[in-house]
Amino acid sequence: MQETDKIPVWFLRQAGRYQKEYMAIKEKYTLVEICKNPEVTAEVTMLPVNQFDVDTAIIFSDILIPLEPMGIEFDYIKGYGPKIFNPIRSVQDVENLKPIFPEKDLWYTGEAHKILASKLNIPCVGFVGAPFTLASYMIEGGPSKNYAIMKEFMYRENATWHKLMDKLATEMAVYCNYQVDCGAQVLQVFDSWVGALSREDYTTYVFPHMKKMMSLIRNHTDAPIINFGVGCYHFLDLQVETGTDVLGIDWKQDIFNTWEHKLDNKVAVQGNLDPTLLFAEWSLVEKRARAILEHVNRPGFIFNLGHGILPGTPVDNVKRLAELVHEYSPVGA
Amino acid sequence: MQETDKIPVWFLRQAGRYQKEYMAIKEKYTLVEICKNPEVTAEVTMLPVNQFDVDTAIIFSDILIPLEPMGIEFDYIKGYGPKIFNPIRSVQDVENLKPIFPEKDLWYTGEAHKILASKLNIPCVGFVGAPFTLASYMIEGGPSKNYAIMKEFMYRENATWHKLMDKLATEMAVYCNYQVDCGAQVLQVFDSWVGALSREDYTTYVFPHMKKMMSLIRNHTDAPIINFGVGCYHFLDLQVETGTDVLGIDWKQDIFNTWEHKLDNKVAVQGNLDPTLLFAEWSLVEKRARAILEHVNRPGFIFNLGHGILPGTPVDNVKRLAELVHEYSPVGA
Repeated sequence: MQETDKIPVWFLRQAGRYQKEYMAIKEKYTLVEICKNPEVTAEVTMLPVNQFDVDTAIIFSDILIPLEPMGIEFDYIKGYGPKIFNPIRSVQDVENLKPIFPEKDLWYTGEAHKILASKLNIPCVGFVGAPFTLASYMIEGGPSKNYAIMKEFMYRENATWHKLMDKLATEMAVYCNYQVDCGAQVLQVFDSWVGALSREDYTTYVFPHMKKMMSLIRNHTDAPIINFGVGCYHFLDLQVETGTDVLGIDWKQDIFNTWEHKLDNKVAVQGNLDPTLLFAEWSLVEKRARAILEHVNRPGFIFNLGHGILPGTPVDNVKRLAELVHEYSPVGA
Repeated sequence: MQETDKIPVWFLRQAGRYQKEYMAIKEKYTLVEICKNPEVTAEVTMLPVNQFDVDTAIIFSDILIPLEPMGIEFDYIKGYGPKIFNPIRSVQDVENLKPIFPEKDLWYTGEAHKILASKLNIPCVGFVGAPFTLASYMIEGGPSKNYAIMKEFMYRENATWHKLMDKLATEMAVYCNYQVDCGAQVLQVFDSWVGALSREDYTTYVFPHMKKMMSLIRNHTDAPIINFGVGCYHFLDLQVETGTDVLGIDWKQDIFNTWEHKLDNKVAVQGNLDPTLLFAEWSLVEKRARAILEHVNRPGFIFNLGHGILPGTPVDNVKRLAELVHEYSPVGA
């Protein structure tokens, strides 16, 4: 991101079920319908931009959306999460996955980026799921607690695993690059579940593919890339080495110490207030947010949450938090 | 634990659904019935001791069992997990919780320990859930992904939270001490979910209560205490400071580096092979187990998994793993 005179702030999942305006739109459209209708996508994406003093929009979509043109069939089941109807079970399943032609297959996301580029005077983040997190869904067939099916596949079907990860790395890079071509100025890679792996497994089964994806993106664009995971404390350095520009850090660790001591101040960092803290009274939210701001108030820091905003979050706390960050910023000091 | 001439090995959830013998018993009894019938408890506890070359038994029970005499009503729902029918919602709910008189309320666990002490020529671990993990269930009403209900309560009902945690710390210490009196030679405190907290939250909302519980146990017995959590990398030092003798470490981090660099070799450590790795071919299990053994082959190390054995785990891998640890041990070298 460019140099600014204030600390930039935005929120993971800043458009969503905690907003009554979003729920009103959800009464008319399913999640997939919102994602496939560029006008509605743009409308939902704009909701938090209009409500809060945020410095970035993030395209409203879902990490599974680009899997549909690859041949994966799924639906979102209330109270369960995404359900994959044809999970990956064999090398044949992986070979059957189709390459993405985003202009044709995912035109609606591109169109939404174009609409947003014309409406916004702040950047818009485009995003993808990381190969590992997508592969987890594709193999498990849905959300998982232990990832036992996925890990058994990863350990036992080693060659097939790498083939799948390679395909996902390539196709997600294609999709990222398309989003940039259509107007996205920043990219975020969501590797939400990769923290379930040991450092050794990350090194062996994930790292080379992340590196490839990052380099395929970098060869196409200079747009900054944010690499985000949860519970990755044991391989944050490797996440940086993938070639990311910004490391997204969850709420668990002290972001200042992490940046200073574990990352040697390499790359920029984004985070890391606990999203469940937004359920607390404002005074506690303010205290914890100020503690972060006092420690990492310097260039290269992007204020965000450590994970996505949850349903039921009080909107007023979100609004005041964005304001607090900007009031705190040097320009206001 | 006492000095030994071999690396001690046992497995978290070493009796359970991956064993056909256990499943046969489960056809006749519910989980609660097994826990309340000392003969059956002892039989289940003995299953892995008879099958594998382990150095410790662990009493078969569940962390929610002692909540029943406190007044919490629950059942285990297939495919969901434990469901609490009267979750904690107010200070009145906390005040209504009853103290435990283990000789009367939890006599069956004590009786099972006595039976086991007469049958085993290895120690038996007694255990409890840690106050935080129990409070999570009691407030959320069941398993949770984000702990939003629990954290909102913790942040907003600060005094009530501490009252609840204090009660749990006291009552679980009482239950631990009773287990030791009945024959348990080691105690393990399961704080399985506490890794969801930030370091600051652990310090404020959990640490004092853990410290109190540990000291109530220590005042009663010299039995070693194992403190186990998952994803606690960001406050392992605080977990040690609670007064534990052994720190149980999950599968994510390198146990040697953690012991040497994060814990300054304080206390003993237990861990940390990924339980899902047992779904891999034996050659990979062996490679990873050897990597652990080569690094931490010294007094104070207890070989275990980084979390409980999962349903579907190949029994043969469990058996060979116990053997491998003992073959590797100095006495065999």
